[in-house]
Amino acid sequence: MKVLRLVIVGYGNIGRGLVETLAEKRSSLKKGGLDVKVVAVCEYSGCIVDESGVDLKRLLKEKPRWGKRKTLDVINEVDADIVVELTPGDIKSGEPGLKHIRAALESGKHVVTSNKSPLVVAYGELVKLAEDNGVMLKFEATVGGAIPVLNTLDRELKSNKARNVYGILNGTTNFILTKMLEEGVDFKAALLEAQTLGLAETDPTYDIEGIDSAAKVVILANSLGMDVKFKDLKVVGITGVTPEAVDLAKEHGYTIKLVGDIAAKEVSPRLVPLDHPLNVGGSLNAVLVDTDVAGEITLIGAGAGPRETSSAIMSDINAIAEKT
Amino acid sequence: MKVLRLVIVGYGNIGRGLVETLAEKRSSLKKGGLDVKVVAVCEYSGCIVDESGVDLKRLLKEKPRWGKRKTLDVINEVDADIVVELTPGDIKSGEPGLKHIRAALESGKHVVTSNKSPLVVAYGELVKLAEDNGVMLKFEATVGGAIPVLNTLDRELKSNKARNVYGILNGTTNFILTKMLEEGVDFKAALLEAQTLGLAETDPTYDIEGIDSAAKVVILANSLGMDVKFKDLKVVGITGVTPEAVDLAKEHGYTIKLVGDIAAKEVSPRLVPLDHPLNVGGSLNAVLVDTDVAGEITLIGAGAGPRETSSAIMSDINAIAEKT
Repeated sequence: MKVLRLVIVGYGNIGRGLVETLAEKRSSLKKGGLDVKVVAVCEYSGCIVDESGVDLKRLLKEKPRWGKRKTLDVINEVDADIVVELTPGDIKSGEPGLKHIRAALESGKHVVTSNKSPLVVAYGELVKLAEDNGVMLKFEATVGGAIPVLNTLDRELKSNKARNVYGILNGTTNFILTKMLEEGVDFKAALLEAQTLGLAETDPTYDIEGIDSAAKVVILANSLGMDVKFKDLKVVGITGVTPEAVDLAKEHGYTIKLVGDIAAKEVSPRLVPLDHPLNVGGSLNAVLVDTDVAGEITLIGAGAGPRETSSAIMSDINAIAEKT
Repeated sequence: MKVLRLVIVGYGNIGRGLVETLAEKRSSLKKGGLDVKVVAVCEYSGCIVDESGVDLKRLLKEKPRWGKRKTLDVINEVDADIVVELTPGDIKSGEPGLKHIRAALESGKHVVTSNKSPLVVAYGELVKLAEDNGVMLKFEATVGGAIPVLNTLDRELKSNKARNVYGILNGTTNFILTKMLEEGVDFKAALLEAQTLGLAETDPTYDIEGIDSAAKVVILANSLGMDVKFKDLKVVGITGVTPEAVDLAKEHGYTIKLVGDIAAKEVSPRLVPLDHPLNVGGSLNAVLVDTDVAGEITLIGAGAGPRETSSAIMSDINAIAEKT
């Protein structure tokens, strides 16, 4: 039985979603020869540490009693294989995730993260840090939610060279554009509905201006070996998309989608034919990988959601388990 | 450097496509630490055997001079790690692939195949034979062409339980149905165009009656642990789909697609919403995996083509390389 000891940093929606999945899948993972043991869970208020394994079911049931040890100390001191960094990040500084990931890699621990910001701010530095310390840095959950796009590229399409990757990388804007197409409402009405349903933040800037998609383009581009920074991108959001434009597109057999494009280094609303693989409705994400052998492969799935995202995190944990 | 010695059985379009990809990718595979050496290529007329490695570029350039050794003897006698079985198969007997695969597994060699028939005829027997001999039986290329659906399920979605898998598993019928929707032509005209373009056989029965899709449903179902035989399926093809039905569907925001459904154990024409992930045009395939954690993940790509199929075969070879 292979044992992987996890430190989970960040116990918000995503962290809780992961703990739920780990609790649910504990016995099936063990049947597959893998014992995933959570030895610490950290929040800004403190950490719960138990090197014999935190009782996940109890953690989920009761109000957590956060101990006084600080996250960075726990990352440095606790005997663990993987630090799973799931805090929300500041897109400009990358913090607090950046210092967590640095500390984890420097102390010889693999890192799995759903946190885009540290990668957007310091991709090259972090990849080098991982290499220098002989550990893995995995971030499937930062791009495309539940869709295992990075690991599929890395493993199942290994003999392929990806010429480009582009697609719908933000579920909120896709929900809004789908509403506009299907119900003929304008941008504001569709945004309001997204907010009512909890699909858009009170301040929706990050999504509707294309910033979230752009962060994902940066990560995808770098994962393909390009040195692309946020400032290198041309970013246009969806606030200028009118019902008239949507109607006109529809009349000609098209829909309008916010597309992030690695090769073009841009995020912008684009016309997409109705039977094109990228025309997916609701809040789905869709990523098209243009490869030299397999041709165009598209992967579609939920772009967000704590449970769905935990699948991407598990994909990284399993990949580390197989390689170690 | 890990060395994998391959015996390739079947040098038709698919076999040649694989040899082209292996020749093209030789140096990049080596950079990744993998030396894939073809030690034999067999056709019904004979085999070319060179245990120091067949010269692939020469094989592609010149008319092959088939030696007299028989395929089964080469499978049994040549020192190899993997037998890649790429012959066309008879759906009822599974031959000649079935005896090739049996011999390979019994002689302790891994098998990678694009040949559906042996799996449809003898899935359980072959899986057991592989287990008993401590080798792997991989068949990514049998389902969904270039799409790495089986390996993605097996590895990237490993912590998920697949509740169902369904989708468009045949490119020819999708081409025909797409033509009917987009150009308003009837089934016969669309079939004729598919035949003119080389997308459909002179005898198109296998595709249009849903038999090819059904074979893939059998393989997918068994790969998910279900014991499903061809005769257990309800199979309806697309010959009864009229332009009127297609028009009516379109009017209501739907299209008609031939869908193979594992849980329902059936292949039949179904209504699919225009912005549904399974609404893909041309000769694309699309496979939707309904999982318990990641939710619905759809994979789309070319359903056929020698080059595209070689990507799926390489996916299996790489998976074997990683596990051995």
